[in-house]
Amino acid sequence: MPEMEVVGRKANALGSRDIVTGKARYCRDLSFPGMLVGKLLTSQHSSARIVRLDVSRARALPGVLTVLTHADIPGENSYLYAEPDQPLLVVDAVRYQGDVLAAVAAEDEASALAALEAIRVDYEPQPGIYDPLEAMQPGARQVWPDRPNVHSHLVIACGDAEQGFREAEVIIDHTYHTPLIEHAFLETECAIAKVEPDGTLLVISPGQSPHRDRMQIARALGLPESRVRVVYPAIGGAFGGKDELHVQIHAALLAQATGRPVLIERTREESIRTHVKRHPVQVRYRTGAARDGRITAIHVEAVGDTGPYLNAGAEVMSVLAASAYGPYRVPNARIEAFTVFTNNPICGAMRGFGIPQVAFACELQMDALARELGLDPLAVRLINGVETGDRLPTGVTLRQAGGMKGCLLEAAEMSGWRVREQMERQPAPHLRRGWGMASIIFTVGLGRNVPDFAGASLDMAADGTAILRTAAADIGQGAHTALAQIAAEALGIELAAVQVVRPDTHVAPSAGAAVGSRTTFVSGNAVLSAAGPIRDTLLDMAAAETGLPREVLSLRGGYVHAEGERLSLTVADLAAQAGWQNRRLHAEGFYTMEYPEEMPPGSYPYAHAVFTFATQIARVLVDVETGEVTVEELVAVQDAGQVVNPDGALGQVEGGAAMGIGYALTEELIAEQGMTLNNSLESYLIPTVQDIPEIQVRLLEYPEPYAPYGVKGIGESSLTPTAPAIANAVADAIGVPIRRLPLTAEAVLAALEAQEG
Amino acid sequence: MPEMEVVGRKANALGSRDIVTGKARYCRDLSFPGMLVGKLLTSQHSSARIVRLDVSRARALPGVLTVLTHADIPGENSYLYAEPDQPLLVVDAVRYQGDVLAAVAAEDEASALAALEAIRVDYEPQPGIYDPLEAMQPGARQVWPDRPNVHSHLVIACGDAEQGFREAEVIIDHTYHTPLIEHAFLETECAIAKVEPDGTLLVISPGQSPHRDRMQIARALGLPESRVRVVYPAIGGAFGGKDELHVQIHAALLAQATGRPVLIERTREESIRTHVKRHPVQVRYRTGAARDGRITAIHVEAVGDTGPYLNAGAEVMSVLAASAYGPYRVPNARIEAFTVFTNNPICGAMRGFGIPQVAFACELQMDALARELGLDPLAVRLINGVETGDRLPTGVTLRQAGGMKGCLLEAAEMSGWRVREQMERQPAPHLRRGWGMASIIFTVGLGRNVPDFAGASLDMAADGTAILRTAAADIGQGAHTALAQIAAEALGIELAAVQVVRPDTHVAPSAGAAVGSRTTFVSGNAVLSAAGPIRDTLLDMAAAETGLPREVLSLRGGYVHAEGERLSLTVADLAAQAGWQNRRLHAEGFYTMEYPEEMPPGSYPYAHAVFTFATQIARVLVDVETGEVTVEELVAVQDAGQVVNPDGALGQVEGGAAMGIGYALTEELIAEQGMTLNNSLESYLIPTVQDIPEIQVRLLEYPEPYAPYGVKGIGESSLTPTAPAIANAVADAIGVPIRRLPLTAEAVLAALEAQEG
Repeated sequence: MPEMEVVGRKANALGSRDIVTGKARYCRDLSFPGMLVGKLLTSQHSSARIVRLDVSRARALPGVLTVLTHADIPGENSYLYAEPDQPLLVVDAVRYQGDVLAAVAAEDEASALAALEAIRVDYEPQPGIYDPLEAMQPGARQVWPDRPNVHSHLVIACGDAEQGFREAEVIIDHTYHTPLIEHAFLETECAIAKVEPDGTLLVISPGQSPHRDRMQIARALGLPESRVRVVYPAIGGAFGGKDELHVQIHAALLAQATGRPVLIERTREESIRTHVKRHPVQVRYRTGAARDGRITAIHVEAVGDTGPYLNAGAEVMSVLAASAYGPYRVPNARIEAFTVFTNNPICGAMRGFGIPQVAFACELQMDALARELGLDPLAVRLINGVETGDRLPTGVTLRQAGGMKGCLLEAAEMSGWRVREQMERQPAPHLRRGWGMASIIFTVGLGRNVPDFAGASLDMAADGTAILRTAAADIGQGAHTALAQIAAEALGIELAAVQVVRPDTHVAPSAGAAVGSRTTFVSGNAVLSAAGPIRDTLLDMAAAETGLPREVLSLRGGYVHAEGERLSLTVADLAAQAGWQNRRLHAEGFYTMEYPEEMPPGSYPYAHAVFTFATQIARVLVDVETGEVTVEELVAVQDAGQVVNPDGALGQVEGGAAMGIGYALTEELIAEQGMTLNNSLESYLIPTVQDIPEIQVRLLEYPEPYAPYGVKGIGESSLTPTAPAIANAVADAIGVPIRRLPLTAEAVLAALEAQEG
Repeated sequence: MPEMEVVGRKANALGSRDIVTGKARYCRDLSFPGMLVGKLLTSQHSSARIVRLDVSRARALPGVLTVLTHADIPGENSYLYAEPDQPLLVVDAVRYQGDVLAAVAAEDEASALAALEAIRVDYEPQPGIYDPLEAMQPGARQVWPDRPNVHSHLVIACGDAEQGFREAEVIIDHTYHTPLIEHAFLETECAIAKVEPDGTLLVISPGQSPHRDRMQIARALGLPESRVRVVYPAIGGAFGGKDELHVQIHAALLAQATGRPVLIERTREESIRTHVKRHPVQVRYRTGAARDGRITAIHVEAVGDTGPYLNAGAEVMSVLAASAYGPYRVPNARIEAFTVFTNNPICGAMRGFGIPQVAFACELQMDALARELGLDPLAVRLINGVETGDRLPTGVTLRQAGGMKGCLLEAAEMSGWRVREQMERQPAPHLRRGWGMASIIFTVGLGRNVPDFAGASLDMAADGTAILRTAAADIGQGAHTALAQIAAEALGIELAAVQVVRPDTHVAPSAGAAVGSRTTFVSGNAVLSAAGPIRDTLLDMAAAETGLPREVLSLRGGYVHAEGERLSLTVADLAAQAGWQNRRLHAEGFYTMEYPEEMPPGSYPYAHAVFTFATQIARVLVDVETGEVTVEELVAVQDAGQVVNPDGALGQVEGGAAMGIGYALTEELIAEQGMTLNNSLESYLIPTVQDIPEIQVRLLEYPEPYAPYGVKGIGESSLTPTAPAIANAVADAIGVPIRRLPLTAEAVLAALEAQEG
C-alpha cells in the first residue's frame, strides 16, 4: 500500500475544541420554546405486584400537563433489544428497581416532582430472587411465571474435553467472580422529544444506534418509522450503556400526548438505578495441561446474572463464551454459558461485552498454571499462544494472529519483564511489589449470522470539500474523526475538507450500533465503498485533463499526482468541472461484514472472524498493612491493525486501561434485595486522574485483510487485560491470588489473613 | 406499462393541510434565541457614483451590533449566477435601484431602521440609460465602462431565410412589446443565518437551488462549501424570483460578523425594487407564408432589457430564441436575440423564462397571418403544426409532438370553436365578444451542454416505509408530492409510507434548480434510479420467500403480487427481514438529462430535447365604452405527459392561466429613470380570485420516452398561451389587434380610437 496522507497521521479529534471549551451542545444544552419537564416514577421495590396505581390526583395538579401510565401507550408497551420483555410503563408488576410506573410532563421541575409525589402506588411486595445460582436450582422461585430462570444455556465444544483432561498432567480448577458495575458516563441519560409542524416526531438524544432507537420509538408510539426522526447531539459517553433506549420513548410519548416539546434528564441516582450494567459473572474455569505447559483441555462454566429483562444478556454471554479460551491454542474445549434471570439490576452491553469477565478468569488461570508448573507467566503464554492459521474452538481459522505473541513480547520488553527481579520486591517493610501480565483476544464486529452492516454517504461540493453522512454514533471514541480520515484518504483531500453530519435518521442510512468495536471497521468500509465511485470519476477527469493514463494518477492532499509527483491540478479544479460535465460526485456506500471462510461442521454459528490482541503488564505496590493496591506502572500493547488516528488510538487505550483499573480495584455496585445502595459517584468509586499511573502504550499494526486500510477496532479490547494483569500482579506481590473483583483493600487484607491462617 | 397504483392517482399535496391551517413554518415563522434583525440599505438612484459612504455614526448607535460595507466581506463581493457582476454591497457606484450599500444587524427592527437612517451616503448621480434600443445604438452611453451594452447577440438560423421570404406570397411584419413584470410571490424574500456550535454556517431561507445557494454563500464568506448548510423551510412561492440569491448572503455575513443568528426579511416594497423581473422584450416578427397558409420563413429579432447585471439574462434570451418559431414547421428561419444592459431593474428567471414573451409575438403573428389569408386561426395552426419526427430550426428532431395538434383540436372541441358564431358577438350595445386561441411549444429541462442533473436518496425502514432525501425545492408546484408518488410507485408502497425530507445541503445531493419545468422529470428519474436497487432487493427476497420466479412478481400498494394477484406477503415483511439478511434497502440515485440523438452540423448547441405543447382558447367580452376586458371563459388543454398528481397538475394549469391573465390584462411595473413607481400590491395589480373566470382544464397524456413513467414538466407551459389567447380574443372582439401587453382599458380604448381614426 502506498504511504498514506491522512490515515495514520496526527488528527485533532473533530469537535474536540468545542468539547474542551464547553461549546459542544449536549442534549441538556438544547431547548425549544414551551419545552416541558418530563419525569419518571420508578419502583420502590425490586419485586412486587402493583395493586393500585392512581394518577388522578397528580393529573389534576397545577402545571402538570399529563401523567401517562401503561394504558396511555398507543403502540407496543416494551423496549425491544432482543425480546420485548421489558415494559416501558409496567402493567401490574415490578421486577427490578428500575421499572417505571408513570411518566409525567409538567411546566417545570417542581411541578413534575410534585406530580410524582402525588401518584399513589400500592405495592404488594413479592419475594424476589437475587442469587443466580439459587435461581438455577430446580424448584427455585420463578422470576417469570412463563419463562424459566435459566434463559439460555449455551455450549461451545471442540475436540474431546474429557479426553483432553484425561491426557492432562495437571488440572487447574478455580472459580472467579466479577462484580456488577456501572458505566458512569459523564452525561446521564437525556432526551428531548418534539412533534414537528409536519407531524414528524423528532427525538434528540444520545444513543448508540439511531435507527434502532427510531424503530423502538415508532413501535411504541404507533407511528411509521419514517415519521420518527432521531438526531444525536454531542454525546457525553455511552460505553454500551446507551445502546438500548433509556428515556427517549417516554419523552416521545409525553411530547405526543401534550403536543409540546419535552425534556427528560435522569439524575445520577436515576441513571445508576435504571440502565443496564456489566453482568456480574461467576466463572468456574478448569484447565488441563501437560507438564511442558501445553493446554490439553478447558472446561468453562459461566453464569451471568442478567436481571429480570433479557436486554443484551444472551448476546453478552455468547460473546463471553466464544472468547473464553483466550488467545491460546485449546485443542479440546467445553464452554458453557448460562444467562439467568433474577430480580437484580438488569445487565447488558458494557465496553467489553462479556470478554472482560471471562478474560479475568482465563488470565488468572494462566498464572495459576504457570505457578503450578513452575513456569514464567510469559513462558506459559508463549507456549500456548495462537498463531495465524490456528483454528479456534469456535471453528474459526485465524486470518491474522501475529498480534498475540507480538504484543506479548513487546509488552515484556517495554516493562522489563525479564529483568523485573532487579527491582526491589519489598521497597519498604509494609510494601510488596509485584508484576502481572494478561493477554487477551478480542472480537471485532457482531459475529456471523447477525446483521452487521453500515451505510454511509459522501457528497463532494464544487470546491472539492466533502460532506460525510453517517449514522455511526460518535460516543467519544472518535468514530467521526476516523471515518472522516478514511473519507479524506480515499478522496485524496485534506481532513479539514471533510465535514461530518451529525447522526440523524433523516440524513444517513443505518450504520448499525456503535458497539462491538465495529464502527471504524464496518462504517469505515462503507465510507470506502462510497468514496470509490467519486474517486473513479475524479481520476477519469484527471486522466482526460492531463492526457496521462489513469493508472499513474492518484489523488493526495487535494492534488492530482502522477507517478507520485504532485501536479498543479487540484481536486477542487476537478470538482468545479464535474458539474459542468454532468458528472456525479456523490455516492452512497454499504458494507456488510464478510465471512468468506468455510466453517467446519459443528462450528459456533455466531463466531467472529476479526480479532485484536493485547497484552498489558502491571507493576503494583501492595500495602500489606492497609491492603491498598497502587498501580505503579501499566504497559499496554495493543494490536490495532492500521492505526487511523494515532492520538485517538492512544487515548482509547489509555481510557480503556483507566476503566480497567476501576474494574480491578474499586468498582462494584452493592445491591441488597435487588436495590442498589451506592447510587452516586461519591459512593460508587471510579478512578480519578490521581488513581491512574503513567500508562505506557504501544500500538502494533497487524493489518486486517478485510478492513478499510487494514484497521481494526480497539475500543473495547484495551480495557480487557487491565484487571487480570493487576490481579496477577497483586498475587505476585502478596503470594496469593484473589479470584474476585474488585481487589479492594478489604479483599487484600482478607486474602493476606487467609494466607497466614 | 402496467396500470399504476400511485402515479396518476389522486394525492393530497404533501403539507397542504399544514399550509391551509397555518401550521406550515415559513422562514419568518422561525426564530432562534438572540436572533438579530438585519436590514439592508438600498440605493436612492438607479445610476450614481458613491462619493462617500459613512457608517460610523450608525455603528455607534445603541442596539446596533454591526454595519457592514463592501470592505467587510471576507470572500467574493458578488452574486454568481452566470457572471460575478452584481456586488453584494456596492463599492463605488450604483447601477440600479436595488443595489445594496450596507447591511445592518441590530437587536430590534427600530434600531436597525435607525441605523439605516444614520448611514450617510453622498451620491453623485450619473445619467443612466433606460431604453434598450437606445442602449444598442453606436456611441450610446455605456452602463459598464468595460462591457458593451449589448451583452450578447444570439443568432439561430436554419434553411435560407432570405430565400424563404422570396418564396413567400404574404409577409406579416409586426413588432410586439411585453412589459416588465413582477413575480409577486406571497412570501417576500427572507433568510435566517446562524453560526452553529461546530462553526458550520446554517442558512434557512426559501430558494430554488440549495446547492447553488450554498456555493454562493460559501464564496462570499470565504468558507468551504461543506461548512455552509442551506435548509429550505416552507416556501411561499418563487416563480423563478428566488432562483438567484436574495438576502441569504447578507444574513450570513451579519451572522458571521456578530456570532448571533440574524433574520432579514424584505418588505414588499424592498422585494419589488430589488429582485429580478420578467424581461420586457421587444420582438419584431416577420413571417413569410404561401397563400395556402404554409409558413416559408420567419425572421425574429428580440431585444431583452436585462438591467445592469447579467443574472440569467442571456439564458432567458437563449430560451426565448430557441422557442421563437412556436409549435410550427418553419423551413427557413433567422432568429436573433439581443441581451442588453440598461439601468432599469434587473431581469432574470420568471415562470416561462422568455417563452411567454416570444409566444405572445408568435401567436399574434399566426392570427395576423390567418386574417391576411382569410383562414380560420385553427386552420392556420393545423396547417403549420409540428408533428413527431419534424426537425425544429434548432436542429432538434421531435421525439413526441402528438400534443401539438392533440391539444389544439381538443381545445377547439371543448370551447365550441367551430360553432362559436352561434353565440352573440354583441350581447349588449357596449359589449363585444371575441374568441382567441394560442398554441405553444415549451421546453423541459435546461438544454444541451448545460449541467442538468439531480441526485436523490431513498432509505427504506424496517417497517417498509421510506425516507426520500431530495434537494429539489418544492416552491408550491408540488414537487415533493410528485417525487414521493414516483418513489411510492417504484417501491410498491403507499404514498403515505414515503416521507420527504426538506431540502438541506447536509442531507441530500444536489438536485439542481427548481426551474425549467425540470424537477419532476430530472429529479423524478433520480428517484427512480434510487428506487431500482431497493426494489430489486425486495423482489429477490420475495422470490426466495415465495419460491416463485422473480419475473412474475411485482410490488404494489405495500404488497407482493404474483402475476397481478395480491399475496399476503408485504413489503413491510420483506423490509423487516432485510436487516437480518444484511441486505441493503437504501440507495442514492442520479440522473442527468439524456440527449442521445445526433444533431446535424450547425445545430443550436443549447437546444432542448423534451417539449410540451399546450393550447388555450379564451372567450372575452370587451366593454368598448370603458375599455375593460373580461375573460368569460378560458379553455386550457395541456400536454402533460403521464400525469403524476391529477389535482396538482390541474392546479398547475389553473394557476398558470391565472398568472397569464395578469400578464395579459393588468400587470406592469412602471419605471421612470429606472426607479419603479408601483412598488406595492395595491398599485401593482395581480389578478384576484374575482378576476379569474372558470378555467376548463384538460390534460392530455403524451408520454415522454426518456421520462420517469413518461412524465413531463408543466409548471411553466400552462402560463404561456394565456396572454396571446386573450389578446387574439380581444382583437377578434374589437377588430384590431393590440401588440403590446398588458391590455389595459386605456390600451383598448386607444386601439379603438386609432381604429376609428
